[in-house]
Amino acid sequence: MDSIFADRVTDVPRSFLREILKVALEPNMISFAGGLPSRELFPLEALKAATNKVFDTAGADVLQYANSEGFLGLREWIARRYRDQQGLDIDPEHILITNGSQQGLDLIGKTLLNDGDDVVLEAPGYLGAIQAFSLYKATFRPVRLNDDGIDLPQLSETLEAYKPKVYYAVPNFQNPSGITYEEDNRLAVAKLIQDTRTYLIEDNPYGDLRFMGTHKTSFKKLIPDNTLLLGTFSKTVVPSFRIGWIVAPPPIFDKLLIAKQASDLHTNSFAQRVVHQYLMDNDLDAHIEVIRKAYGQKRDAMIAAIRDRFPKSVHHTEPEGGMFVWLTLPEGLSAMTVFEAAIKEKVAFVPGHPFYVDREDTSTFRLNFSCMDVETIEVGIQRLGKVLHGLID
Amino acid sequence: MDSIFADRVTDVPRSFLREILKVALEPNMISFAGGLPSRELFPLEALKAATNKVFDTAGADVLQYANSEGFLGLREWIARRYRDQQGLDIDPEHILITNGSQQGLDLIGKTLLNDGDDVVLEAPGYLGAIQAFSLYKATFRPVRLNDDGIDLPQLSETLEAYKPKVYYAVPNFQNPSGITYEEDNRLAVAKLIQDTRTYLIEDNPYGDLRFMGTHKTSFKKLIPDNTLLLGTFSKTVVPSFRIGWIVAPPPIFDKLLIAKQASDLHTNSFAQRVVHQYLMDNDLDAHIEVIRKAYGQKRDAMIAAIRDRFPKSVHHTEPEGGMFVWLTLPEGLSAMTVFEAAIKEKVAFVPGHPFYVDREDTSTFRLNFSCMDVETIEVGIQRLGKVLHGLID
Repeated sequence: MDSIFADRVTDVPRSFLREILKVALEPNMISFAGGLPSRELFPLEALKAATNKVFDTAGADVLQYANSEGFLGLREWIARRYRDQQGLDIDPEHILITNGSQQGLDLIGKTLLNDGDDVVLEAPGYLGAIQAFSLYKATFRPVRLNDDGIDLPQLSETLEAYKPKVYYAVPNFQNPSGITYEEDNRLAVAKLIQDTRTYLIEDNPYGDLRFMGTHKTSFKKLIPDNTLLLGTFSKTVVPSFRIGWIVAPPPIFDKLLIAKQASDLHTNSFAQRVVHQYLMDNDLDAHIEVIRKAYGQKRDAMIAAIRDRFPKSVHHTEPEGGMFVWLTLPEGLSAMTVFEAAIKEKVAFVPGHPFYVDREDTSTFRLNFSCMDVETIEVGIQRLGKVLHGLID
Repeated sequence: MDSIFADRVTDVPRSFLREILKVALEPNMISFAGGLPSRELFPLEALKAATNKVFDTAGADVLQYANSEGFLGLREWIARRYRDQQGLDIDPEHILITNGSQQGLDLIGKTLLNDGDDVVLEAPGYLGAIQAFSLYKATFRPVRLNDDGIDLPQLSETLEAYKPKVYYAVPNFQNPSGITYEEDNRLAVAKLIQDTRTYLIEDNPYGDLRFMGTHKTSFKKLIPDNTLLLGTFSKTVVPSFRIGWIVAPPPIFDKLLIAKQASDLHTNSFAQRVVHQYLMDNDLDAHIEVIRKAYGQKRDAMIAAIRDRFPKSVHHTEPEGGMFVWLTLPEGLSAMTVFEAAIKEKVAFVPGHPFYVDREDTSTFRLNFSCMDVETIEVGIQRLGKVLHGLID
């Protein structure tokens, strides 16, 4: 029966995450397994006001079919923000609105990847990128992440050996690891990439959610011709609207636009107008400051509890932003063993192996801190600490 | 430089339609080139009321990430309507919400088509399908449309010769031709398909917009195991929200879901809730009746004016619904010649060749009647009649 399918879909593994998330829903379970923004912080009233304003001012026009590029006003707003915030000079005409960053990944795969083309992937790497590029039959070339960014010797070897078309990176507060590329690491990466024909996909969903430390330079500034930049409003304004974007120079933009048109004609243009209206009528930075403060407190509580409760032999990252902490167990201890013991103690997380393309098991796992309160975080980490001490001591 | 791209995008031709639609925007041009629903008929106030109700009752939940399948309430509504309206027994769990039907086509291509796989396409065929399947490197096998449906001998030969994976059909008021498969034609098609492993993609965006004649049986009823059914709210409720769906049996549904997740996680779930609320609080059939009446008058005006003004040697279809009429010129006269003369007389349309996968020029063209008033239709057809008489007589 399976021969009716395209080869590309038969290669994609069944979602292990689905099973995990099911377990996470059991009563009294404290789940660090999710990856959702905090629903308490969504600007519900402001979005309602923006929606009504769009209905009242723009009328039936916003209900009609629209162009594939996206609403120009929104693309201009995004370009202005890049200029004001980061000194990046981006033409609104080079911004393509997508259904969240995930569609950005899909369109890039569709536009750039032939079967078997090499894609450099961070190890651990973002699951959504693994899924999107798998469907274009990418050959992944994983490169290790260290606490200060990508492993430079391994990246250098990989670039030389495979001359990959694409290097997919989440340089700020990466999902799943929480790791940020330090400034030196970025400069070194830029130097390695700049004279190649490799495109660095700079996926930056969490960049605005920095709680501490200093802003790092975008690859779009360091190596503009080699960088495709992805952004989204999902972590700062609203996820359900699915509004993201790709910044791409003209020859690639044109092909991405053809792919976008063939994929779904255009992103919900009413939602684009509502987000634009919200941005015109509200101070996004003030709203982001509220999110930063709240997530920062959750992050601090989690890190403090980990220091307090976990065996010293368990390594944790120290994210300066975003939504995730990454844990590494002493060698030889499987995250699945910990997971099975943990769910008995009513605490859940995501074992690390789905974030690698070449492992069945790992000694790493991911904890999310964005969507529960500080007290729950402390109780959950306490439970998990007990489990870890039981297995390690 | 082009070698950076995947082969699939280099094969897609530059959009000729864009150029046409640019011409159509010139001052005083009467354009039959578009394919838009009439903006005057969008239920603006009812959608605004539904939106506010969703904000007030569901709150922040509708702003969060959602599942990839789509909102269950909406899928249940769609299943109920299939049962009540057509006696089709469809499980809501077999309905996948997509970003308009166009994404349905993309996901089907992604899930079923390997490079070079054969796809039966109506000739003329829907441009969106040509684009979507081209990006999966389909080998199109065009089969002629006649006034009563698909050409049966040619379909039979094509099925036998290529054993295609997919046969893409728009059996009701097809875009671009306006042709409907008559009941006998459907029965004969079903007989040809039923013992094969070919999937008939029944794309039905216009099915509700019947002005005259009787309802025809869905292929989903005739050959349920061989049919994937596509639907959309774009022509009946609102296009900009991009809410469509695929009905697919389990093994295919599961793969489509993986493809959907990898493509964009999920369709704007706020918009899904708003459409659902609209459907709960309003009588969709009463609204559709208003659209039918309005489009029916436009259609009648266009057909009457064509009979009155065009040379008898120009053949036209007689659509019983939808938005388009298809014209065939006397042999040897190119639609491009007519187009060039027509724009000088300030009337535009779409020449037929983009709707074929194997022609550079044709003697056919498409007229849209849904988005202008009766008087404008009459003036436009009068202008075009003058051009045609000048070229033919």
